[in-house]
Amino acid sequence: MKTARQWSIAGLGPQDLRIREAEIAAPGVGEMVVRTEAVSLNFRDKLVMENGMGLPLAFPFVPVSDMAGVVEAVGTGVTRFKPGDRVISTFMPGRLDGNGLGNARNPPYRTLGGAHPGVLSEYVTFPADWFVAAPKTLDAGEASTLPCAGLTAWMALIESGHLKAGDKVLVQGTGGVALFAVQIARAHGAEIFVTSSSAEKLERVRGLGVKHLLARDGWVDGLLDLTDGYGADHVLDIAGGSGFAQSLKAVAVGGRISLIGVFGGLEISGSAPDLLLKAPIVQGISVGHRRALEDFVLAVDVVGLKPVIDRRYRFEEAAEAFAHLDRGPFGKIVIEF
Amino acid sequence: MKTARQWSIAGLGPQDLRIREAEIAAPGVGEMVVRTEAVSLNFRDKLVMENGMGLPLAFPFVPVSDMAGVVEAVGTGVTRFKPGDRVISTFMPGRLDGNGLGNARNPPYRTLGGAHPGVLSEYVTFPADWFVAAPKTLDAGEASTLPCAGLTAWMALIESGHLKAGDKVLVQGTGGVALFAVQIARAHGAEIFVTSSSAEKLERVRGLGVKHLLARDGWVDGLLDLTDGYGADHVLDIAGGSGFAQSLKAVAVGGRISLIGVFGGLEISGSAPDLLLKAPIVQGISVGHRRALEDFVLAVDVVGLKPVIDRRYRFEEAAEAFAHLDRGPFGKIVIEF
Amino acid sequence: MKTARQWSIAGLGPQDLRIREAEIAAPGVGEMVVRTEAVSLNFRDKLVMENGMGLPLAFPFVPVSDMAGVVEAVGTGVTRFKPGDRVISTFMPGRLDGNGLGNARNPPYRTLGGAHPGVLSEYVTFPADWFVAAPKTLDAGEASTLPCAGLTAWMALIESGHLKAGDKVLVQGTGGVALFAVQIARAHGAEIFVTSSSAEKLERVRGLGVKHLLARDGWVDGLLDLTDGYGADHVLDIAGGSGFAQSLKAVAVGGRISLIGVFGGLEISGSAPDLLLKAPIVQGISVGHRRALEDFVLAVDVVGLKPVIDRRYRFEEAAEAFAHLDRGPFGKIVIEF
Amino acid sequence: MKTARQWSIAGLGPQDLRIREAEIAAPGVGEMVVRTEAVSLNFRDKLVMENGMGLPLAFPFVPVSDMAGVVEAVGTGVTRFKPGDRVISTFMPGRLDGNGLGNARNPPYRTLGGAHPGVLSEYVTFPADWFVAAPKTLDAGEASTLPCAGLTAWMALIESGHLKAGDKVLVQGTGGVALFAVQIARAHGAEIFVTSSSAEKLERVRGLGVKHLLARDGWVDGLLDLTDGYGADHVLDIAGGSGFAQSLKAVAVGGRISLIGVFGGLEISGSAPDLLLKAPIVQGISVGHRRALEDFVLAVDVVGLKPVIDRRYRFEEAAEAFAHLDRGPFGKIVIEF
Repeated sequence: MKTARQWSIAGLGPQDLRIREAEIAAPGVGEMVVRTEAVSLNFRDKLVMENGMGLPLAFPFVPVSDMAGVVEAVGTGVTRFKPGDRVISTFMPGRLDGNGLGNARNPPYRTLGGAHPGVLSEYVTFPADWFVAAPKTLDAGEASTLPCAGLTAWMALIESGHLKAGDKVLVQGTGGVALFAVQIARAHGAEIFVTSSSAEKLERVRGLGVKHLLARDGWVDGLLDLTDGYGADHVLDIAGGSGFAQSLKAVAVGGRISLIGVFGGLEISGSAPDLLLKAPIVQGISVGHRRALEDFVLAVDVVGLKPVIDRRYRFEEAAEAFAHLDRGPFGKIVIEF
Repeated sequence: MKTARQWSIAGLGPQDLRIREAEIAAPGVGEMVVRTEAVSLNFRDKLVMENGMGLPLAFPFVPVSDMAGVVEAVGTGVTRFKPGDRVISTFMPGRLDGNGLGNARNPPYRTLGGAHPGVLSEYVTFPADWFVAAPKTLDAGEASTLPCAGLTAWMALIESGHLKAGDKVLVQGTGGVALFAVQIARAHGAEIFVTSSSAEKLERVRGLGVKHLLARDGWVDGLLDLTDGYGADHVLDIAGGSGFAQSLKAVAVGGRISLIGVFGGLEISGSAPDLLLKAPIVQGISVGHRRALEDFVLAVDVVGLKPVIDRRYRFEEAAEAFAHLDRGPFGKIVIEF
Repeated sequence: MKTARQWSIAGLGPQDLRIREAEIAAPGVGEMVVRTEAVSLNFRDKLVMENGMGLPLAFPFVPVSDMAGVVEAVGTGVTRFKPGDRVISTFMPGRLDGNGLGNARNPPYRTLGGAHPGVLSEYVTFPADWFVAAPKTLDAGEASTLPCAGLTAWMALIESGHLKAGDKVLVQGTGGVALFAVQIARAHGAEIFVTSSSAEKLERVRGLGVKHLLARDGWVDGLLDLTDGYGADHVLDIAGGSGFAQSLKAVAVGGRISLIGVFGGLEISGSAPDLLLKAPIVQGISVGHRRALEDFVLAVDVVGLKPVIDRRYRFEEAAEAFAHLDRGPFGKIVIEF
Repeated sequence: MKTARQWSIAGLGPQDLRIREAEIAAPGVGEMVVRTEAVSLNFRDKLVMENGMGLPLAFPFVPVSDMAGVVEAVGTGVTRFKPGDRVISTFMPGRLDGNGLGNARNPPYRTLGGAHPGVLSEYVTFPADWFVAAPKTLDAGEASTLPCAGLTAWMALIESGHLKAGDKVLVQGTGGVALFAVQIARAHGAEIFVTSSSAEKLERVRGLGVKHLLARDGWVDGLLDLTDGYGADHVLDIAGGSGFAQSLKAVAVGGRISLIGVFGGLEISGSAPDLLLKAPIVQGISVGHRRALEDFVLAVDVVGLKPVIDRRYRFEEAAEAFAHLDRGPFGKIVIEF
């Protein structure tokens, strides 16, 4: 019986987050044990610890959904991996391809670090189907940023959006999903527009090769001016809420708005005539499926995409890492084991 | 110089609508004269007359966008038609295929009976490109219902929605677009659910072969009960407004909501989590392009689709026909010349 | 330990096909035992028995890939089914969605009744993932025809082909896939053209509601005459071989040819200019994935599609059933247990 | 009445090609006069002069389909351009979007420098609809290479192929279409494999950033070795003929073969099992439509794509330019006026 150190909470509320020792289950049929090398944080990890997000958490609850690691042992029937393989987790286990799980009455939100246990643990024992091979060109810290933030941007722009060179892409902000969107759009030859309320962050975005930088106030007019009224073929609406109305103003005729987050509020609203006259597609992006993550991993290796990591913390510094999240990082926060 | 009788208004406001005599232009290069046999009414025709909808109307203004007629004469350079051909108009002249016209700053709303002159006239002289061949199996009254109401339903379900047999389609109401959606969905083997506040209209829908009839109050729960929580693959949201929130509840995981009208209000609003967790596509439907109308005409002939006409009026009865519109017809209102 | 009667061969060659008794394995993790109620035959079942088709058969080898039955017992971890559920098999186990298995060097041909054991057995023990729920509206004999022949036609026309009402569909012959194609095309409002060398079979096709019947000799000219030169939006090329050249002549500009069989030879050939000037899509159809089979099952129930069965045999009459296959059945041959 | 010098032939056969003076028509309704600045050559230009390719040529016949120039004068009704605008021609006038023109009986081959007059002329008078705006970032010689060779590669990989980063693209040869394919694939983050019989040309391809260079003999095995058996997601089959059989071996499961040329013969042939088991899409590419050319022009400007020009000739050197074509240029041959 193996034991592992893991960060966990015994009840809702982040104040209780601390390192506890836990037993690691031996791998059953189809399962494997993975030694965690790095995890990356998403803002939702904090929400889950704080209020549970309505999920049926099992305590002690280990938070965090995204990891990279090395296969330690495999159970019977596992053919996709062998000990020593480098892997990353999938955000929504069991969503292999196509639509999400669940139905209209009970839409799916069964993620790692949520309805399933999290990965802020030295070892995890999960079904082998919950993992994909890690990119060859990334270290563990970088690789750990792909399952949620990276895949979300890939699903929005590529798997659903079929982005092509010359398309105009508007990205809101400079968080993890936003900077992945910038890098993915750049790798496909798009013309990119980024908004931020921070002039300093916009300067850092310039370093990623983005020419069109827009202050958050008045960004729609800024975009329309720069494009001679055309608008954006793809709008990544990271905030949602009433800001969705601006996305509807900004989207090109026949364009696409990917709605990604809920920081702007749990209710979206906007102008029906904009939606009718321009006939854009509006699509909520619920991260994505395993097949798209495999596609994205391939792309990362081929184009040499290096995820933007604001700062790397050590395992013992998890609390500091979460505190950094609150300050709005430029890209991703990573914890290395 | 030919003259024609036409219904027109000399200034905004429907009270002024009356028959006036007008000169009909000879066809220029690429143009043709069409003798109108029938027109069909859309609710927007009333809005245009009442408040102009912000459009640059030229007075005397002839209302109504949809017509069927016979080619009377063609100008030089016209090769698609010859005198005697039976034709129908297109709602948005010049939109041949693909995305709509205009751009994000000035989205397109250049329709017949709006920015362009209307068709409630014995003759019209328009570019030949603005017409398509009428279906062989429909009379003029029936054919006149296709350009706006019919094509809207076709774009939502087929051209954009790729509906297939076995899909679940939820249609709101029993107006012109709604009943076309029912007939198109039936022709593709879909399972259809129709909502209405009128039990009598629901009974008439049953006569169109629809099994699942839902009272408007509580229709979302009714749908979810009937489908064991699955929801609808395609939701035709005819009203928009705050009712959009219900469409978001009703749509299946990975489904599609087509937003079609603005009767429910000029602002749509709904739950962001529904949009994120189920990742449906939401698309405003701005009628459609000429190529899709040609596809639809073919389909009408092959499947023997007969548009549902609530009542046919004579040319002189235009005022009564418009009054009928206010009472909420079952299907379409037609004026025959 | 349960035993079952099953038809099997101890070595290549159909002359050895006879009923043998065999032990039925208890269901392991994720597996289930299904009591077979009916199987349907495909021509490839004969080829496998005769020459093995290059597959690594395990002897005694039980032939046949398609079955319908009732779940008898489930192993641990099975959640999709429970005892008593009516199920049908999938032709290529493990292909859940998206592309086929394998790679360019070793393309996949791992089917039931081939690389995997077959189903001409009173009981089978397979992973639960290899089954889908049977249609509610079909008896076992009818349901058993869906996994290979039915799904092939569905993949060609719907999953890959996005058939819509008004499309012109050309179907070669009156075998199992062909008649499914006719019924699926009809359920979607298509205009259908069927070819056959048998006037009597064409008459039977008329009974399925098909108007355009074409003698096999000269069918391309027949089609082009009937369509005023347009051709067919979808060509189901059941034979392949040099007949592919005719499919290239027949396909409409921008149309689609689904290549389904190899009766016409293992080499296809045709005119490059036809392929270049008309730019059709040509796609080999390798049956399909489980998700599409689930879609098809839904469609069957909603539209009331009844598979065409030429004749039903009893379990003991398997040899006679195979002999019937050689004579070119009209639709499917079924064996009921 | 304006006159212009133009290269033309008075009858079939390239030996007659010489500079003649011709009158240039004033622009009619919807037409415009364009002053040619550069043209680029395609191999088909030679075939048309040599044997007419079965086309109804009007003599004296001016060859060549692709040009860049400046609008000199516009007729009534022209709104898309004004004098001074820089434009490029479209290869198949009148194909604005969607499928090609014509039908199955008479597939379309109505190109400039073919059924329509060519552009090896100091001035041309054509409908304004036959042009699109030139890229801002290319000179006239570069811009003239887009309408046929560039658009063909774009249609194959992007408009039809939805190429994404990480995809494996196999390009045959180093001619005009091939090198455009390389540059377009690179701009979208693909992994690229190029074949050639010339080691020297492969070295020049390396300079375009391509890592995987394959000798033409045995290229399929080379590709499969490099990809661990996976094959190529996109195969650009430039030659066709019996080489198509190799493309079928090389394509990945679920991949795509774009058939582009007929140098390998007017008959394609290949293995039906490859087509069935891997279920790739095979599509002939007939250049493309105007909307896709506009998309491509945008992409060229955004990604800074510079067409590869082997050599630029002066107007008077047209014969030398054509002679160069026979020797197999690396990229495009351009004639500047």
